[in-house]
Amino acid sequence: MKETAILLIHCNDRKGIIAQVTEYINQNSGNIIYLDQYVDREKKAFFMRVEWDLSTFLVDKDDIRGDIHQMLEKDAPTLQMFFSSVKPKMAIFVSKESHCLYDLLYHYQSGSWGVEIPLIISNHEELQGIAEQHGIDFYHIPKNKDNKANQEQVEISLLKQMDIDFIVLARYMQIISPDFINEFPNKIINIHHSFLPAFVGAKPYHQAFARGVKVIGATSHYVTNELDAGPIIEQDVAHVDHRHTVKELVRKGKDLEKVVLSRAIYKHLERKVLVFDNKTIVFD
Amino acid sequence: MKETAILLIHCNDRKGIIAQVTEYINQNSGNIIYLDQYVDREKKAFFMRVEWDLSTFLVDKDDIRGDIHQMLEKDAPTLQMFFSSVKPKMAIFVSKESHCLYDLLYHYQSGSWGVEIPLIISNHEELQGIAEQHGIDFYHIPKNKDNKANQEQVEISLLKQMDIDFIVLARYMQIISPDFINEFPNKIINIHHSFLPAFVGAKPYHQAFARGVKVIGATSHYVTNELDAGPIIEQDVAHVDHRHTVKELVRKGKDLEKVVLSRAIYKHLERKVLVFDNKTIVFD
Amino acid sequence: MKETAILLIHCNDRKGIIAQVTEYINQNSGNIIYLDQYVDREKKAFFMRVEWDLSTFLVDKDDIRGDIHQMLEKDAPTLQMFFSSVKPKMAIFVSKESHCLYDLLYHYQSGSWGVEIPLIISNHEELQGIAEQHGIDFYHIPKNKDNKANQEQVEISLLKQMDIDFIVLARYMQIISPDFINEFPNKIINIHHSFLPAFVGAKPYHQAFARGVKVIGATSHYVTNELDAGPIIEQDVAHVDHRHTVKELVRKGKDLEKVVLSRAIYKHLERKVLVFDNKTIVFD
Amino acid sequence: MKETAILLIHCNDRKGIIAQVTEYINQNSGNIIYLDQYVDREKKAFFMRVEWDLSTFLVDKDDIRGDIHQMLEKDAPTLQMFFSSVKPKMAIFVSKESHCLYDLLYHYQSGSWGVEIPLIISNHEELQGIAEQHGIDFYHIPKNKDNKANQEQVEISLLKQMDIDFIVLARYMQIISPDFINEFPNKIINIHHSFLPAFVGAKPYHQAFARGVKVIGATSHYVTNELDAGPIIEQDVAHVDHRHTVKELVRKGKDLEKVVLSRAIYKHLERKVLVFDNKTIVFD
Repeated sequence: MKETAILLIHCNDRKGIIAQVTEYINQNSGNIIYLDQYVDREKKAFFMRVEWDLSTFLVDKDDIRGDIHQMLEKDAPTLQMFFSSVKPKMAIFVSKESHCLYDLLYHYQSGSWGVEIPLIISNHEELQGIAEQHGIDFYHIPKNKDNKANQEQVEISLLKQMDIDFIVLARYMQIISPDFINEFPNKIINIHHSFLPAFVGAKPYHQAFARGVKVIGATSHYVTNELDAGPIIEQDVAHVDHRHTVKELVRKGKDLEKVVLSRAIYKHLERKVLVFDNKTIVFD
Repeated sequence: MKETAILLIHCNDRKGIIAQVTEYINQNSGNIIYLDQYVDREKKAFFMRVEWDLSTFLVDKDDIRGDIHQMLEKDAPTLQMFFSSVKPKMAIFVSKESHCLYDLLYHYQSGSWGVEIPLIISNHEELQGIAEQHGIDFYHIPKNKDNKANQEQVEISLLKQMDIDFIVLARYMQIISPDFINEFPNKIINIHHSFLPAFVGAKPYHQAFARGVKVIGATSHYVTNELDAGPIIEQDVAHVDHRHTVKELVRKGKDLEKVVLSRAIYKHLERKVLVFDNKTIVFD
Repeated sequence: MKETAILLIHCNDRKGIIAQVTEYINQNSGNIIYLDQYVDREKKAFFMRVEWDLSTFLVDKDDIRGDIHQMLEKDAPTLQMFFSSVKPKMAIFVSKESHCLYDLLYHYQSGSWGVEIPLIISNHEELQGIAEQHGIDFYHIPKNKDNKANQEQVEISLLKQMDIDFIVLARYMQIISPDFINEFPNKIINIHHSFLPAFVGAKPYHQAFARGVKVIGATSHYVTNELDAGPIIEQDVAHVDHRHTVKELVRKGKDLEKVVLSRAIYKHLERKVLVFDNKTIVFD
Repeated sequence: MKETAILLIHCNDRKGIIAQVTEYINQNSGNIIYLDQYVDREKKAFFMRVEWDLSTFLVDKDDIRGDIHQMLEKDAPTLQMFFSSVKPKMAIFVSKESHCLYDLLYHYQSGSWGVEIPLIISNHEELQGIAEQHGIDFYHIPKNKDNKANQEQVEISLLKQMDIDFIVLARYMQIISPDFINEFPNKIINIHHSFLPAFVGAKPYHQAFARGVKVIGATSHYVTNELDAGPIIEQDVAHVDHRHTVKELVRKGKDLEKVVLSRAIYKHLERKVLVFDNKTIVFD
């Protein structure tokens, strides 16, 4: 596997950006292996993901960002630059349910995701054994109304100390405070067990049962200060009928939740998600 | 095709109801060709659909209902009795959009549904031509705030005069008043262009676009006095992404709407839908 | 709606093609409103769809193709050039089943597709009435072993005389001969009522029933000389269970068939389908 | 959780069977908590699953089967009798891929399935660590052409010695011989990574890629002597497009495989699957 550079561009739309960027890469002997772009015509915003082989590239890695920035200076660019040689570090937050955690650990242990998982944090002790089975540090950080602010500071210190790039709430049954969220903007991925915006908040399967819906869903989104209202990365649904009790909705929903969460994380790891205007652009 | 009897039972649950009912049919030489039942254990309610061949049945058609009622007297039964020889009469309400209407007319014209459609009612004139192509009476009954109550009375008279069994709102863009609904309880089928309970009310695709969802949906339900909150018969969804404009959501959603509505109507025509507690039991 | 130019490029892959093409459009004051591209890295083939506003474009419409061809001369280009002002002409072939035909006619009559339908050809008379309802010429061209070659010549003459751009087999139950297919390469769209490559040939629902599958499907593809083996444009499936008789598979499958066929036609009309190596690239 | 009895009946269809069986349970004070039945009208075969609370039941557990058999004697009954107090024993066969194994172990470890897993057998050593993490005995039984027959005898001895009820091939890349299969009829569950009957045999994702399909699938079925042709329990699909390489089909397919396999096992564990005529009846 050769090292690649991945560049995410978000800037004002104008003619010729693609031509300029690809020209820059080509002229410096970079071999483009992925290019996708999207224009929001209403908001006049341009988004692009380009990935190229660095093995023959003539520009020093540290200079690329600056070059591109200069090129797009008048277009108000926001750039994100990644290198395939750097494995992102992911922290997992869990409570008592293990179905999502298990699926994440499969991807981790099998090597199907290029990711490091330095720690698992939980407000309960039930899943400590699973963390230990996989040789991952487990931190039991219980929370209640009184200690929540302090405990979040403990968590933030831990995450910073370990250079965590992003956080996955794998059915973590605690609301994250704005102070915490502000430390990790668009870097906290949650799984909510409904097709949002339906059934926000607690006990969505009970809500779904009460309403008598014929589909249930799961939604993975970035966490923002408004509960269950952040940019949606991935959603899916399953059909149910009158025979499903709440217990059976819960059981059936777990398969959805784990798959939807893992798909969202994979897209995030592939650097294919851009956030704009509380929505996501998710490249293929 | 032999004539069959279809019996829908809703009563309190107790041991032995299935045994009693099937025994009654068997002893009177009825050949059961369909039997499905459901018990709501929490609410102790029993539901059953049984269909049998009448060609060899020894009891007079007019006496069946009474016999069953007597048998279940202490179980507070609600019975619905249908005969396959009687074609239900369906009225269609439309506004300007033709995609659902077209799909209904395919089913009607091809004979794939055993239904009569004596009339189409619309608050606009655009779809008159399609009604005429299919030889169905078209009534243009425009509505505004001032004449709505009167016009609904005109509609009710028309529907009663023609012995209409149930009404389909095939993207009819008017809210039906409680007075109208009370005349046809659980007999008005609507299609709403979202996965309810998300995006109730007007312009659901605009709401979906604004929220940045990754699936859109359609829901067919019986109309009740609370807007878009009646018992759901059928729902389905389609995947969308950031590239979909509102216009494209609308286009993609139309395929969903027509299919979901037609499925719901088919279940209703097959007498497989029972309403209980603002939810539906939909037998297979 | 301003007039746009749509260019489909297929050529050998090399660095800089996107840059060159977009540069050409930009420098001549064309405003790009759609750009997608795909590289088959294994086969070193490049595919691109670009669409731009012609209202400010400085190059004469008749010269565009030549300019691009010259630019890509060494890359063995195959170019397809379309203008949004030209409505494609579609012929429909049917037999006795009307579900797909009805759905096509909805799209035609409602104007949701920019297409002309000058004629419907059938080997049976059953659907003549529907054609007439919609004011479309209907040709009854029955076929048997002996007259097939002649009748196909009649059809080809008719299609050429009417400047037909592409043909839709909307459940046309006749195998098209190689002579006919060669006249319309990648321009005959068929719907097959299974998830190909399973259940090729006759009576796929009977085959599906016999095998006891838990999903049924429909596949829309371009017709080639090998039966049901042409490039697939669109596929979808529906879940079924042991309760489904062949008759019910057929009924349920019809909803799939019409939707899958219409989606494939829409992609074709949008000029978003490219054929390569008996497969399709279908842009979003 | 009270102990329940589960009875699966397969016999010739005749009037009155449901009445008789439910009457027997009712008269002996059994409280029915599940009843579903299916009639194959073409083959005149009757299938039923009934489950009832044993806590108040007056008949001795050991006598139930005999009573029912006597009642249906003339109907050529095949009966299967299970008690919820007895946990079934499942053996897992794996090769090198861990995604399905991981999902099974989640269900096992979380207690969401009432099952014992006394052993994992593999023809490779790669997954031994995972078995050990979960405290399950791991047997490395490598196979080649020469030793296959012998090694299968070793496996059969092991399985019998441990009273294994059924076997799951969780991506076990070896063909099971007829001698082995005959020891466990309808008790070996396989997952095949395609929507059967398409892409039987080796490398189905390569076959899918070569054909250019727009959906991929997974199928769980009971193993019979004909390769990938046994009774299908569960199937599902996912949409793909031209951008998916074989590697990406494999990655995307794994999510399908594990979910489809787990659903099939759950149905089997719930005693809701009956096999007839190389097909399955899967009750809800």
